[in-house]
Amino acid sequence: MLSRRAFLSLAGASALARPARVWGRSQSAPAIDPARLRRHLESLSTYGRPAGGTFASGVSRVAYSVADLTARAWMLEVIKEAGGAPRLDAAGNIYARLGGDATRAPILFGSHIDSVPNGGNFDGDLGVMAAIEVLHAVKAAKITTRHPLEFVLWAHEESTAFGKGTACSRIVAGDLKPGDMEQVWNGMTRADALRRIGGDPDRIETAVRPKGSWHAYLELHIEQGGTLDRAKVPLGIVEGIVAIHRYDVVVEGFANHAGTTPMGERQDALVAASSLVLAVREIAASRPFDSAQGRQGRQVGTVGRLEIEPNSPNVVPGRVALSVEFRDLSEAVLRELGDAVKARAATIARDTNTTITFTLASTNPPALAHAGVQDAIGKAADQVGLQTRRLPSGAGHDAQQIASLCPMGMIFVPSAGGISHSPRELTTWDDCARGANVLLGAVLELDRRDSI
Amino acid sequence: MLSRRAFLSLAGASALARPARVWGRSQSAPAIDPARLRRHLESLSTYGRPAGGTFASGVSRVAYSVADLTARAWMLEVIKEAGGAPRLDAAGNIYARLGGDATRAPILFGSHIDSVPNGGNFDGDLGVMAAIEVLHAVKAAKITTRHPLEFVLWAHEESTAFGKGTACSRIVAGDLKPGDMEQVWNGMTRADALRRIGGDPDRIETAVRPKGSWHAYLELHIEQGGTLDRAKVPLGIVEGIVAIHRYDVVVEGFANHAGTTPMGERQDALVAASSLVLAVREIAASRPFDSAQGRQGRQVGTVGRLEIEPNSPNVVPGRVALSVEFRDLSEAVLRELGDAVKARAATIARDTNTTITFTLASTNPPALAHAGVQDAIGKAADQVGLQTRRLPSGAGHDAQQIASLCPMGMIFVPSAGGISHSPRELTTWDDCARGANVLLGAVLELDRRDSI
Repeated sequence: MLSRRAFLSLAGASALARPARVWGRSQSAPAIDPARLRRHLESLSTYGRPAGGTFASGVSRVAYSVADLTARAWMLEVIKEAGGAPRLDAAGNIYARLGGDATRAPILFGSHIDSVPNGGNFDGDLGVMAAIEVLHAVKAAKITTRHPLEFVLWAHEESTAFGKGTACSRIVAGDLKPGDMEQVWNGMTRADALRRIGGDPDRIETAVRPKGSWHAYLELHIEQGGTLDRAKVPLGIVEGIVAIHRYDVVVEGFANHAGTTPMGERQDALVAASSLVLAVREIAASRPFDSAQGRQGRQVGTVGRLEIEPNSPNVVPGRVALSVEFRDLSEAVLRELGDAVKARAATIARDTNTTITFTLASTNPPALAHAGVQDAIGKAADQVGLQTRRLPSGAGHDAQQIASLCPMGMIFVPSAGGISHSPRELTTWDDCARGANVLLGAVLELDRRDSI
Repeated sequence: MLSRRAFLSLAGASALARPARVWGRSQSAPAIDPARLRRHLESLSTYGRPAGGTFASGVSRVAYSVADLTARAWMLEVIKEAGGAPRLDAAGNIYARLGGDATRAPILFGSHIDSVPNGGNFDGDLGVMAAIEVLHAVKAAKITTRHPLEFVLWAHEESTAFGKGTACSRIVAGDLKPGDMEQVWNGMTRADALRRIGGDPDRIETAVRPKGSWHAYLELHIEQGGTLDRAKVPLGIVEGIVAIHRYDVVVEGFANHAGTTPMGERQDALVAASSLVLAVREIAASRPFDSAQGRQGRQVGTVGRLEIEPNSPNVVPGRVALSVEFRDLSEAVLRELGDAVKARAATIARDTNTTITFTLASTNPPALAHAGVQDAIGKAADQVGLQTRRLPSGAGHDAQQIASLCPMGMIFVPSAGGISHSPRELTTWDDCARGANVLLGAVLELDRRDSI
């Protein structure tokens, strides 16, 4: 049974045969060129490659580094080759618009090329080069799209620089605070960093784009987790990017001599912290079947940072500072997990004669993928006969920023072994090509729709 | 029922009425002067006191620092006032011999005045100033002892400098390795450090003393733990200084994205390490009743150091390095504890999909206090009507080095709240005076004995 809205949407789609007709003029269905995609990824991998290394050595292309600068300069040529006219905004993002009816909102697609230190050759890079393939394929198939197509290369996505991730798409979404440009990292201000990549910090507000600037936003990305790889499913349709609640936790015990303080008299902050680490794991891992989603909860909980004072083998630890973070698509679930851990911490503190304090250090809201964009991705996958799985994105992406401006969707391809942010990050060339073709198909599918 | 040896020992003691007769010549039983003891400790506390601080601010008198050097210079005057003629050995230890029959081995007593950074005013200091009191009291009471009395101020006891504790008494005991003098700490070699305090590194072997150099060694020290304070017992007779087994442990998991790695797929090194921390505590705390000692095991187990890689809130920890140390008077107990933890680690590694490797990084053998010296301390405590408790020393002391050269014994006085290595370290003036009087009584008791 279809709702009136769904009916109208389907009616609208069926009424729009124009792109299909345009395709008819070319000799075959549009497709990306897997050989060029691979060549582009291999060429990009040389910017920031360790000296004497190979493709397998991974890449260090941290935002604003020389590797990032030279790769961006090369990307301008790659974009031009694909028929685009690159344009920088004040935040250093590179756009290139192609064809379409200028009165319609463009369809935006792209990713980033900056990496973590000692990272891999697929995170971000694949989405950018697949977007280049979309431009090539549309041109080669001589397709005239209804909406302008807009390529984007987001600057500074990884949180290495200035401790801030999705930094430049964030500006586009209007998240711009006084003092942001005066932040200092690695001996430079953000203003200087942006100038280095051709941005214009003095007119930074011109990079902000209003709601409705685009018809839709699409991003192809490696999964970075092992769900698709384990399930042997070649394509993921992202339901949304998870929300993150991060706590700074301090355990206060009492530092004392490890030889003279009997076990029963200790206020060992590390014993308390260890119990808390296990509680976080247990609570995140054992949250029961989620009836709303019809499956086991997919929330994760992590203690990734832990610092002890005085951290000496012969002193009972007196103080431990640690981080606890939870991720899930639902903020209600995150609050529930936080409350459960805090309740457990109260018991641990009592049992260990310590005090444990929680500070909610940061909250990232979830960014849900638009149902219509998910549907378009599913259709594109069907067209090339690919099995798909819906899944959340546990990692942050530029897409989460742009979700506030237009309907957003993301396509995931498998990460071998779920490994990412590592030179061992790997997606097969076949999976890369499949993902790029689905990106192309989804762009064209969305182009057919007036209402997504 | 007495053994033949015990009978002969008692007979020998009863035959030696000479010291008792000597006392008879003075007007009262010999005793230390509590006011002078306090004055001396307060004066000593000014060497290394934080600027603008008071006695309660504690002291930073790290070995070889200016505070240590000036305090040692002042101590030469204090020793002379007490009737001693100070003499430096090549390791920087200060001896002063007083009276007695030069053909007999001297009775040695003393402690150290170097401190940890931000330490207290009683650790070491009390033992030194109580030893000064013994010299004063014997002189004031005009006692002629059978054995020469020998005061000692050990140089460099705390492990702050060169990461090595009981460093100069260790040399006296013959623990001197090639290269020791070339170790570097704080921009100086140990040779330079020893020259700074008047030592002679080029003739360092002259500081080594042969077995039997002394009739006995006695050291008064604060307990540094809370056993006496809690039990409201003013005096502890040390049974020995515990052995230490210290392990370096490495947990190898796999670092991965904290958002994209489902709970079930993680190889979280910190989760494994946390389980190990709790296992160490549980195993050390729950070792059952020790039938040999007739009481609950007094072993301790500590994880005091723990380092994570990469230690970032959004990365599942891939590697943790930590230390595990156990202390007990019995090395057999230490081996048993180590084996139990290693067995538990194997289970933890299996459950968490990590590997855990143990390296025995250091072993300190136990140093048992001589039963005869313990007996002499007990007698001295009886004479002044003090209740006593036998207990091990969980901390290391110079006495553990000297135990290899002659019968050794230690006297403990209560540490308020068991706090040590802190400005909050506190022993009441009454407890200080009681301890010093027992030291005096034990010296005189040992002087009566030919065979200890």
